[in-house]
Amino acid sequence: MGDKVISMAVVRRLPKYHRYLYDMMKDGIKRTSSRELSEIIGFSASQIRQDFNNFGEFGQQGYGYNVEDLYNEISNIIGLDKKYSMMIIGAGNMGQALIKFGFDKIGFDIKAVMDNDKEKIGKDIGDVKVIDINILETYLSKNKIDIAVLCVPATVAQDVADRLIISGVRSIWNFTPIDLTVPDDMVVENVHLVDSLMTVAYLLNG
Amino acid sequence: MGDKVISMAVVRRLPKYHRYLYDMMKDGIKRTSSRELSEIIGFSASQIRQDFNNFGEFGQQGYGYNVEDLYNEISNIIGLDKKYSMMIIGAGNMGQALIKFGFDKIGFDIKAVMDNDKEKIGKDIGDVKVIDINILETYLSKNKIDIAVLCVPATVAQDVADRLIISGVRSIWNFTPIDLTVPDDMVVENVHLVDSLMTVAYLLNG
Repeated sequence: MGDKVISMAVVRRLPKYHRYLYDMMKDGIKRTSSRELSEIIGFSASQIRQDFNNFGEFGQQGYGYNVEDLYNEISNIIGLDKKYSMMIIGAGNMGQALIKFGFDKIGFDIKAVMDNDKEKIGKDIGDVKVIDINILETYLSKNKIDIAVLCVPATVAQDVADRLIISGVRSIWNFTPIDLTVPDDMVVENVHLVDSLMTVAYLLNG
Repeated sequence: MGDKVISMAVVRRLPKYHRYLYDMMKDGIKRTSSRELSEIIGFSASQIRQDFNNFGEFGQQGYGYNVEDLYNEISNIIGLDKKYSMMIIGAGNMGQALIKFGFDKIGFDIKAVMDNDKEKIGKDIGDVKVIDINILETYLSKNKIDIAVLCVPATVAQDVADRLIISGVRSIWNFTPIDLTVPDDMVVENVHLVDSLMTVAYLLNG
């Protein structure tokens, strides 16, 4: 990739390519073309060629793409050649569902879950023990966490985010309905479920 | 709104406006301007004016916007003046978390949850009883469901979607990692958590 800047629109298509190429590999498909990918993924063939050109020379004129090579390359571009450590903050319903989701299978290991509920602290959820959120800073000074998953009530979301920032966590996967204020170099990826559901309502009335 | 077509980019900003205007109302703020909204929401003032112009005449030159009127109007545009009935399909971790999320507070009532697990069928999750997915068609012939929430394993996602389509359900809120094939007039809103997490990984390596 070098220093080439890839637009967020392209970045957001990468996981989809990754998913479809994985399925093709599983089905024993060795070779594909932008036209074939277009039919199954739904992006235009020229869009697909343009996207892949962002990452260097992939396809060969008249041959197309080697599915496994392309899959591996996109995996590497996303960063799936590495492992990531995650911490869930908030052991409520959503936090618990995410702990049991199985993200470890794709290289995202949940190392800890934090909560302030005395009833939950010390107990296990799945394979992960619930830790008192009071020791967040101490925990983070001793353990490297790549991604903090924020599942706390909206009212404390920014406070917890501020503590994560000070503790050096570089990314937040945000399940709260709050748009967090963070430094420019911090990664925040929002999963605003209510916004998503409202979009359904709007479209139902369209 | 009339027949005016609003772009999906604008539609996706509506819930965010809704959220911020609600908070302003709660804080007792009566009046605002595109400039002020720009500072707290982060969109440009001209973008905000352009968005609101889509819905008719809102603001007054030199006065700005009445917060409550704007909030109510955007609520109506989204369709929050109506109630929606939802059905959760798949009573696993994610399905259970969604049942307990509290969507009823914003007018989305979960009427049923379906699963094929004999251990779960007949039991309550929150206030909702788990129904045998075998009677999906019978249930839908007797009960109007606006939104089906798909939380089933990927392997059966399309099959279940096909059954929903035949049964006349008009929208699917899709938590499976599958891009569903549906008729053009069907609403599908995807929450692809793995795609979202992969975006975090990519950005962490940026």
